[in-house]
Amino acid sequence: MSVARRFIKQELPLHLVRRHLEPGPVVLLTSAQGTSRNVMTLGWQTVMEFSPSLVGCMISAGNHSFELIRQSGSCVINVPPANLIDTVVGIGNTSGADIDKFETYSLTTEPGVKVPAPSIAECFASFECRLSDDRLVESHNFFVFEIVHATVARLARMPRTLHYTGDGVFMISGRRIDKSALFNPHML
Amino acid sequence: MSVARRFIKQELPLHLVRRHLEPGPVVLLTSAQGTSRNVMTLGWQTVMEFSPSLVGCMISAGNHSFELIRQSGSCVINVPPANLIDTVVGIGNTSGADIDKFETYSLTTEPGVKVPAPSIAECFASFECRLSDDRLVESHNFFVFEIVHATVARLARMPRTLHYTGDGVFMISGRRIDKSALFNPHML
Ligand SMILES: Cc1cc2nc3c(=O)[nH]c(=O)nc-3n(C[C@H](O)[C@H](O)[C@H](O)COP(=O)(O)O)c2cc1C
Ligand SMILES: Cc1cc2nc3c(=O)[nH]c(=O)nc-3n(C[C@H](O)[C@H](O)[C@H](O)COP(=O)(O)O)c2cc1C
Repeated sequence: MSVARRFIKQELPLHLVRRHLEPGPVVLLTSAQGTSRNVMTLGWQTVMEFSPSLVGCMISAGNHSFELIRQSGSCVINVPPANLIDTVVGIGNTSGADIDKFETYSLTTEPGVKVPAPSIAECFASFECRLSDDRLVESHNFFVFEIVHATVARLARMPRTLHYTGDGVFMISGRRIDKSALFNPHML
Repeated sequence: MSVARRFIKQELPLHLVRRHLEPGPVVLLTSAQGTSRNVMTLGWQTVMEFSPSLVGCMISAGNHSFELIRQSGSCVINVPPANLIDTVVGIGNTSGADIDKFETYSLTTEPGVKVPAPSIAECFASFECRLSDDRLVESHNFFVFEIVHATVARLARMPRTLHYTGDGVFMISGRRIDKSALFNPHML
């Protein structure tokens, strides 16, 4: 596997995180607890609030990541560029119970600022999360996280993202279209 | 506004709904309670389970739709094709408390099969929902719905979809790429 581009990221105001998550990209969720750390692929996420910046994630209890995230009460949501697609598939088809996925997939980790989980340098945005509401964890494996620190690469143009449709098929994000002229100012 | 295409839809097995919602499209949520009915634009949704087919939606309590959905315990998630973009913006910038948005935006409604809310013929997929879990409604306006009836247009190629990034800017879905050969069979 060729070496992927590493991004230099800068802090992003928390209420702007939605720009990157609301379109629905597949993300890489990193976790750490004690001396263990891990990374998994996740498509089932949604923005839930601007401020505080809340995101909901469905993390299956069968995944090795589940207990690391539950016990540490934290994780990092990393947004991979579309050219990381084979890595995204690999990370979503192997378990941290069996292998060190950071090593296997040559990912560069950077220490979290506010959480124990690392950020991934090959992802262009990283959002550090603290568990905010666990009422739906037992019944639905659904975690509500508050984003407590956000970084994103400063680029003239954001990289394309991956959007999963199931059946092994991804949609790659397409062009942007600005309709702000049609919005009520208070809706922007 | 020109007349939009109406889709003829056929029933879809419920566990396949994720194909259409997981990539993260903006949807049109219809609701009905008594003699009132309404439609709103919604971007904050996520798949939560295959079977039963669960979807989580953040529906702000300030919206007129909120009480219709809460009281009827149901709604329909309609997926609009990208060329409906001006309608999607209009519906998300006006309130059913003030106008009949079906009339204003020339939408054709079809009666729900299992819920009181109508489906929209100008949308290529419609998923009828019953409220399944309301524990996060009070605190987060977050509804967990079970999809109880699903229809989708049979087309050689699904229309492009809209993905919201905030600030009045949408991403239009792009090309698809099949990576199923890299998946473990049980992950497909
Ligand atoms: C594209 C894709 C999307 C996925 N989305 C999710 C998800 O939303 N939630 C989840 O629990 N697992 C999801 N998975 C599966 C996990 O990534 C997979 O079970 C992984 O092996 C878990 O790793 P772990 O056991 O090391 O935690 C997805 C996998 C792929 C390939
Ligand atoms: C692209 C877009 C996405 C939106 N997403 C949501 C959402 O996820 N949740 C929500 O409560 N409102 C969302 N809105 C705002 C509602 O659509 C808007 O408040 C609408 O006027 C509500 O209509 P109602 O009062 O008739 O129910 C969105 C608006 C737009 C334009």
